[in-house]
This record gives sequence, structure tokens and C-alpha cells, in this order.
Amino acid sequence: VSTDREELPSDPACSVERALGVLGEHWTFLVIREAFDGKTRFSEFQQALGVSTGRLTARLKVLLDAGVIEQRPYQEPGARQRYSYHLTQSGRDLITVIGALQQWGDQYRPRPEGPSSERRSAATGERLEVAFVDPRGQSVSQDQVRFVPPST
Amino acid sequence: VSTDREELPSDPACSVERALGVLGEHWTFLVIREAFDGKTRFSEFQQALGVSTGRLTARLKVLLDAGVIEQRPYQEPGARQRYSYHLTQSGRDLITVIGALQQWGDQYRPRPEGPSSERRSAATGERLEVAFVDPRGQSVSQDQVRFVPPST
Repeated sequence: VSTDREELPSDPACSVERALGVLGEHWTFLVIREAFDGKTRFSEFQQALGVSTGRLTARLKVLLDAGVIEQRPYQEPGARQRYSYHLTQSGRDLITVIGALQQWGDQYRPRPEGPSSERRSAATGERLEVAFVDPRGQSVSQDQVRFVPPST
Repeated sequence: VSTDREELPSDPACSVERALGVLGEHWTFLVIREAFDGKTRFSEFQQALGVSTGRLTARLKVLLDAGVIEQRPYQEPGARQRYSYHLTQSGRDLITVIGALQQWGDQYRPRPEGPSSERRSAATGERLEVAFVDPRGQSVSQDQVRFVPPST
């Protein structure tokens, strides 16, 4: 599976392309998903993802370089200092992207057993959706959405 | 650039993984973005993406097989029958994913010249955002969003 990234302009105009520069990597998302799920330690990521130490190290480095996670030192009694991995604001803001992907996958790539995860409000427990909203925070029908050149 | 897809389970439980089975391909998104932009003909996609005939054919086949675009025959006077490519409902529903990616890219991978595209309402011209909304269509603060196992 080739992503042909070498063909792409190094400074693409489109935000989707620029975001995919970080996020297009399949594994990137899986690591971030685990971070949303509360995992912070190397061993936790490794167990959840079933990936070798070398591979996980390489992937965490990509995410650190991209600024979506950050390292924090910690030390358990009698052990050497280690680092844990935490989402930055930029990483936390990926929740909308991940939610949108989940929602689409639930609908168009469903499993007989149903989805493995739902998006709910911590305050009310209500089910949440990812949608376009207007400046008053009210959702807008999808067929009203236009991608337009910026007004100057 | 390896996506390591061969390591992943063939029927992953997570919708993000299942969606990325189609969408993780960098080029997939670029083709869909052009389709949202109104392009339907092979030559239009080819010109917009600057990609060879063989590559574009292969990518359109992936999207056709995934059911996010469909072919429709057309024929111009004196020419042989050709096919144009149109988003299906499944493909149109990717607008939320693409909008979320754009929004993140605009904020965290900005260009000095500003974004190349804005998301606006066709009805009011107002700027739109991608957000989580409750069942009444009202946006919910991001820190209230939880990914939880489904209630049965």
C-alpha cells in the first residue's frame, strides 16, 4: 500500500492535505485513539496495539514531532525515569476528526455486533453526533454546506 | 511510507479502523475532495490532481469498490461512451470527515496566505464549524465528549 506522499507538493494549499500529512498514516490514528481512551504509558499503548517496541517508538516520535502528543517524565520507586505520553491541545482537537470517522464507519462499515464505541455527553449521557454548526452552535443540514474560496 | 495495514485485524472492531480501511489512503481523500468540488469527469480529476491515467484509474476503482462513488455513462456527439464519477450518499456523508480534517489543518497547519477553502452555509453565507451536537442539534463543548462502550 503506497500513499504516494512523495508526489505531493511539500506545502499543499489544501488543509485536508496538510492535516493528512500527519493523520494520513493509519497507525497515527490508532495511537491517538488509545490516548483518548486514557492510555499514557508506552506499555499501555504497546499492549493495546500489539506492535513491536521499535515500531511504537517510531510512531510516537512522529506524533511528538507533529505536536499532537507531548512527553512528561515520571519515575516509579526503584525504577529509572520514564516518559508518559499525553495529548496536547492540538491532539485533543482531533476528537472531531476521530468522531466523524467513527460515525461514518458505524454507518457505512457496520459490524453485525454493532459499534465498539459510542459518542456520548459526559453531562447528560445523551448520544452525540458530529455535524456542521452555524455561529450560534445550531446544526446545519449537510446539503447546505459549501466549501468556498475564502472571502478577502 | 508504510501503513502497516497488513498487521491489522481483517475485521477490526473499531469504526475508525474500518473507516480508515477506505479513507486511510491519502489519495482517496484528494479524489473525494475534488468530487465535492463538483468534478465528475476523468479528465477533470486528472487535471486537478496531476496524476497519471493508470494511477487515477486504480484510485477510482478503489472508491467505486468502496461504494463512495458511482459511475454514470455519458456520450458526447461523435465520441464513444464514457463514464462520469459521482459521489453516492456514503460519499456525500464523508463531508463531515473532510470538514473536520480541514478545520484541524486550518488551525494547526496554517499557511501564511490563509486557508484555501472555507466552510459556509449556502443559505446564509455564514461560516460553519464541525462540532459535536446533542439530539436537539445544539453544539456541545468538546470536553464533554466521551467515547464509551455501547449501552445494550
